[in-house]
Amino acid sequence: MNTMHIIRQKRDGKALTQAEIEFLVQGIADNTIPDYQVSAWLMATYLQGMNIEETTHLTRAMAYFGDILDLSSIEGFKVDKHSTGGVGDKVTLILSPLVASTGLVVAKLSGRGLGHTGGTIDKLEAIPGYQTRLSSEAFFAQLKAINVALAGQTQNIAPADKTLYALRDVTATIDSLPLIVASVLSKKIASGANVIVLDVKYGSGAFMPTREAAQELAEYLVEVGKRLERSVSVLLSAMDQPLGIAIGHSLEVAEAVDMLKGEGPEDLKEVVLTLGAMQLVCAQKVDSLEAGKQLLQAQIDNGAALAKFRAIIQAQGGDAKVIEDYGLMPHAEHTWDLVASKTGFVSELIALNIGEATRSLGGGRWKKEDVLDLGVGIKLHKKRGDRVAEGDALATLYYNDKEKLAAAQAEVRSAYTISDTAPAATALIGDIIWAK
Amino acid sequence: MNTMHIIRQKRDGKALTQAEIEFLVQGIADNTIPDYQVSAWLMATYLQGMNIEETTHLTRAMAYFGDILDLSSIEGFKVDKHSTGGVGDKVTLILSPLVASTGLVVAKLSGRGLGHTGGTIDKLEAIPGYQTRLSSEAFFAQLKAINVALAGQTQNIAPADKTLYALRDVTATIDSLPLIVASVLSKKIASGANVIVLDVKYGSGAFMPTREAAQELAEYLVEVGKRLERSVSVLLSAMDQPLGIAIGHSLEVAEAVDMLKGEGPEDLKEVVLTLGAMQLVCAQKVDSLEAGKQLLQAQIDNGAALAKFRAIIQAQGGDAKVIEDYGLMPHAEHTWDLVASKTGFVSELIALNIGEATRSLGGGRWKKEDVLDLGVGIKLHKKRGDRVAEGDALATLYYNDKEKLAAAQAEVRSAYTISDTAPAATALIGDIIWAK
Repeated sequence: MNTMHIIRQKRDGKALTQAEIEFLVQGIADNTIPDYQVSAWLMATYLQGMNIEETTHLTRAMAYFGDILDLSSIEGFKVDKHSTGGVGDKVTLILSPLVASTGLVVAKLSGRGLGHTGGTIDKLEAIPGYQTRLSSEAFFAQLKAINVALAGQTQNIAPADKTLYALRDVTATIDSLPLIVASVLSKKIASGANVIVLDVKYGSGAFMPTREAAQELAEYLVEVGKRLERSVSVLLSAMDQPLGIAIGHSLEVAEAVDMLKGEGPEDLKEVVLTLGAMQLVCAQKVDSLEAGKQLLQAQIDNGAALAKFRAIIQAQGGDAKVIEDYGLMPHAEHTWDLVASKTGFVSELIALNIGEATRSLGGGRWKKEDVLDLGVGIKLHKKRGDRVAEGDALATLYYNDKEKLAAAQAEVRSAYTISDTAPAATALIGDIIWAK
Repeated sequence: MNTMHIIRQKRDGKALTQAEIEFLVQGIADNTIPDYQVSAWLMATYLQGMNIEETTHLTRAMAYFGDILDLSSIEGFKVDKHSTGGVGDKVTLILSPLVASTGLVVAKLSGRGLGHTGGTIDKLEAIPGYQTRLSSEAFFAQLKAINVALAGQTQNIAPADKTLYALRDVTATIDSLPLIVASVLSKKIASGANVIVLDVKYGSGAFMPTREAAQELAEYLVEVGKRLERSVSVLLSAMDQPLGIAIGHSLEVAEAVDMLKGEGPEDLKEVVLTLGAMQLVCAQKVDSLEAGKQLLQAQIDNGAALAKFRAIIQAQGGDAKVIEDYGLMPHAEHTWDLVASKTGFVSELIALNIGEATRSLGGGRWKKEDVLDLGVGIKLHKKRGDRVAEGDALATLYYNDKEKLAAAQAEVRSAYTISDTAPAATALIGDIIWAK
């Protein structure tokens, strides 16, 4: 067994054996296979594909060569959620306390973002005092006390995925179905959940360009999940514009708290309630999606969801007064409004450009060591399909550094298209592919 | 223009533009493109191929991003030769003085070997005092004085090829026609010759497995040569056993000198005279291959070829007395004979195993920094098709280190197959593909 043989097999379109895949993943996880050989294998895999058995072996090996969060000492269903990512996606911040308030265990390990805006962990750091680094002991103690924890990865979860993801990013091998499936599921499996709900987004600026491609990925994820004895279900959701109206760290935390208070934008609420209801159905808490949504709405209305978020903040050392006073979080000194140059309808609102504008203001990273400005961001007053009159404010930029404003202005301006006629309505929620 | 775009284009089976290829090669030559991206591009190229225009651009860029040996100050035809390599191939040692003795300019830059046996430069170092490192000034002065020099590369010739070759070797992307063509021709073009003769070997243990594959490569080489305004012609020759009877450094120099004295084995002579005659035809020195061979035989018979080799040794500081006394070169202390275990015919003599045996004795490198034992080697007393009687010596191993003997014995034993019937005769010389 050696790396060259494995590269050659895949190059020639042959299926790799479980032993070959395990040899490869172990070598990637412990850095004994050099990057240049991994890259050659990635390109061969991109072009020659992998069958479902190979993908299952790859996913399992990537999950198990590394640290495993063993939640077996905690009774019952442990739910997890992953999204293929989107501008303004603060779903984890809302969903975790909301679902935990129904009694399910939510052991959530999140990452930082390398992109337009930070990840969930970056957003949580907008809450003064909030500790995102928990020891294993503290993490488990918190799960036993309040059945939910929201922290960053301190363990070495799926280390091969870190190497593979970084290499795929620079070798044009990102969009390969088997590699995507193994990357997404290996981390979730190593993170210990037995009920996994995934949000696969499609549309311009989304990870999958079309709904058909998203559907294919979803079915692949569900099948490999089943083979690895995990309940994996997938929501297909459209991402042709940012989710919700706030983009930027403090602004998104505020919007998440709004939502837990029963306020906030409808599109965000729809995604949160659907994903949460899917978790409740798969964890056998309710019989139907509709019953799940009703239960979750009740948890918002009766204050239990917000109370759970308060408990999380307090358990992790944060200042829970932010729930009443958003001004305790970092905030920007200046604002600038983009106004509509003509009357009509917002026919396009390009998520990517809004993300880039946020990064230009200092709210995203270009490289891993960049320090984020948690106070900056954008609020969208008008979204796709909205009618606007000339001079209406379309969006507000929250900024600190005047020198960064011009680039962000240009980007947010280019995000909006105003047309004379209303755009065709598109559904936010596509299909659900349920766990088998 | 960026590397990712270029990888993506090739991944998707698109042809790269000249500008894209030049960007890539420049980045490889100056090490600004990381190995993992080069590897991904290599695998994409292996699987998606390159058209003849792309291969021509690649060859030109690999030749010109780096040092160029500018021979334009020297009048007339400058001839060069390259072989795809073989066990016991000492052709350069013989061909260079032989062809130079007819008046053609032979500016020969050779390499060291990383393999079973060393390269031409390693072999020349068996001659006491011989300087293989010449300054540019000394190299040109020698060319003007005696129209031939045989030295190692001191210049940075085709640096991108060095990186690409090393990466191809470890990423299973060696046997890609466009990559082979660009590698071979770029070095020859950068080395300044306008008449290039190539020896493409086929058969077990050869670079190309079949004659058909060798023919395809040959036609590709000739076509790209034409597009780059070089006379490139190719000899197809079989390599189902070692060339000549000596393998190992001092032993091969001795065999080369034998040949220049008019002695030595017929197979080696046939290859040398054919390649040399091809150079004479392409340099318009003779009208036909036959006339070329006759002229070269005359140069051997009248002593001019040997005199030229003596002149080379003297010009480069070596002790020319080795021509009369091979014992002045490093030699092994001990010998061991492999004897035939039964009577019959040598039906197989696997070149690869003979090479491995030589390396086991210390006559080849496992890694770049290994120091060679120039005195060890093997002499083959029986070759393919020869009749042998039980107890006949098949081969003699020349060795210094007793601990290295057992492995070499096993390898040389496994190289020979003796059968009851004679093997079908195979022609050593296949086709010649002439320059267009």
